[in-house]
Amino acid sequence: MTELISYFDEIINNVNTQIKNFIKSDIKVLEDASIYLFSAGGKRLRPIVLVASSDLIGGKRERAYKAAAAVEILHTFTLIHDDIMDRDNLRRGMPTVHVKWGEPMAILAGDFLHAKAFEALNESLRGLSSNTFYNAFNLFIKSIEIISEGQAMDMSFENRFDVTEEEYIEMIKRKTAMLFSCSSALGGIVNEADEEIIKNLSEYGLNLGISFQIVDDILGLIADEKELGKPVYSDIREGKKTILVIKTLHEASENERRLITSILGNKNASKEELEKVAMIIKEHSLNYAYEMAERYSHIAIESLQRIPIKNYTAEKALKYLAEFTVKRRK
Amino acid sequence: MTELISYFDEIINNVNTQIKNFIKSDIKVLEDASIYLFSAGGKRLRPIVLVASSDLIGGKRERAYKAAAAVEILHTFTLIHDDIMDRDNLRRGMPTVHVKWGEPMAILAGDFLHAKAFEALNESLRGLSSNTFYNAFNLFIKSIEIISEGQAMDMSFENRFDVTEEEYIEMIKRKTAMLFSCSSALGGIVNEADEEIIKNLSEYGLNLGISFQIVDDILGLIADEKELGKPVYSDIREGKKTILVIKTLHEASENERRLITSILGNKNASKEELEKVAMIIKEHSLNYAYEMAERYSHIAIESLQRIPIKNYTAEKALKYLAEFTVKRRK
Repeated sequence: MTELISYFDEIINNVNTQIKNFIKSDIKVLEDASIYLFSAGGKRLRPIVLVASSDLIGGKRERAYKAAAAVEILHTFTLIHDDIMDRDNLRRGMPTVHVKWGEPMAILAGDFLHAKAFEALNESLRGLSSNTFYNAFNLFIKSIEIISEGQAMDMSFENRFDVTEEEYIEMIKRKTAMLFSCSSALGGIVNEADEEIIKNLSEYGLNLGISFQIVDDILGLIADEKELGKPVYSDIREGKKTILVIKTLHEASENERRLITSILGNKNASKEELEKVAMIIKEHSLNYAYEMAERYSHIAIESLQRIPIKNYTAEKALKYLAEFTVKRRK
Repeated sequence: MTELISYFDEIINNVNTQIKNFIKSDIKVLEDASIYLFSAGGKRLRPIVLVASSDLIGGKRERAYKAAAAVEILHTFTLIHDDIMDRDNLRRGMPTVHVKWGEPMAILAGDFLHAKAFEALNESLRGLSSNTFYNAFNLFIKSIEIISEGQAMDMSFENRFDVTEEEYIEMIKRKTAMLFSCSSALGGIVNEADEEIIKNLSEYGLNLGISFQIVDDILGLIADEKELGKPVYSDIREGKKTILVIKTLHEASENERRLITSILGNKNASKEELEKVAMIIKEHSLNYAYEMAERYSHIAIESLQRIPIKNYTAEKALKYLAEFTVKRRK
């Protein structure tokens, strides 16, 4: 375990250095609003997935660190804009960017980071083949488009009570899993790896990401608010159709269903009402959701077995991440 | 003139076809909100600048059309987000995206188009050298970063009354002229032109863009609202420090200055107050601003003379654009 801790720490430190180097501006307010969320912590899961994927196949660290900065910067841009859209005022235990700087500057900081993510990617590719440039950008661009589509699906589900499990999985594949998949695949692409290897890396990330989002939805319901760093029950208030809600709407009694549908998406619901609904949801769906998360985590680990491994610490790290994703408390 | 009209029409039609091909999504609401502003019209100035710059040096049309779609898509993303930030509810004579779909979907549509712009650029470069990929993306990325900085400067000027002419020019260089400069330079880059040619194309676009923004600021004060398609006087209401306002604050009498500073940025100002302030500004600064716009337009035309010209219709077109920019009424 200490081996993995120092493995992760080295990646995080190097990626953080890269991020700091990229996010600079002579317009101080824009720089401040853009760098803020990075200083507030964050698990750096996507950068770790990218660098460990690169290590796994014997890749070089320099390009991987820059590409890892690109995916983390991209992730942070989506957090800033999502927090505006979802009207969340707490993230990583701190006020969100739009709460601190106002909505206009938060929109702008997100746009600035969106471009900065591309800058980091462009630098990570410098000197590689024209084909690699095209493929890496194509994957990165499509990922952002798909993430936007996932966010649009997530929002459109808020007004519906008939969202199916299949629709939920499709939505979280786009909203969350795509960027994990992009991260692990880029670990291959910046090393100009074979298509087959990139495909398996990509599948590892996709299934890890699905598992991650299911657990995120669970934690939004059961976590300790202080530990989580963002408000619990906000999914209920916003009317989000998580797998837990979908399963519960299927299994609940007529009375429970009536109560749930009256509170879900009700911005004026009291804390007591939210807690009552959360309790019902937990009873009906917690085990089911955890089992589902475990299943996807297991599929992720299986993908690794189809890759010729050059670095066993990296393999351990990627397996650990798939298990940690399910076990984490925040 | 008919020669130029059909020259422009051909470019616009081809670029519009490219734009429609790129902006597709199976999430209908996202596609609708993203494509909306394109259907509402727009002058397609940046695409024309890009394709004519490519023509000027004897370049190929296919790549230029795709790169032109990239700059127009990028421009449209910034319009959608700027309209949210500036709380403008009219654009091209139609309700803005956030008025029609709400702020969350407008933020998302902007982000989606931001990625789509990169997609169009990536396709325009496919098959070119690794160096060209790096340089084209580097220019495009830096342009977006600089545009964001320009927008941040513009917003930060709203609360100041001591903005200098130099600060104004620096701000509009970033907010507006950079994308014109990026457009003309890309016309060279997608044809892998010499550095010297790209530099001169870039200067044409930069000076054209400065002239364009000065005239935009003028039109925000003197245009017919119906013809302009967006509200006049909104710059005064928002407290924007245009060159007209800066000049007027320098030249005005003590009494005029007091009136202006009490109305500039005052969201509750009446139509009569706005008109009165607009009248004072016009008196002090209209000629001055027009002369400045003409000067930059002239510098733009001079840059063309340093480029070995392969296509005289393109040269005529680029000269016409620099003149039209000053003369236009909307």
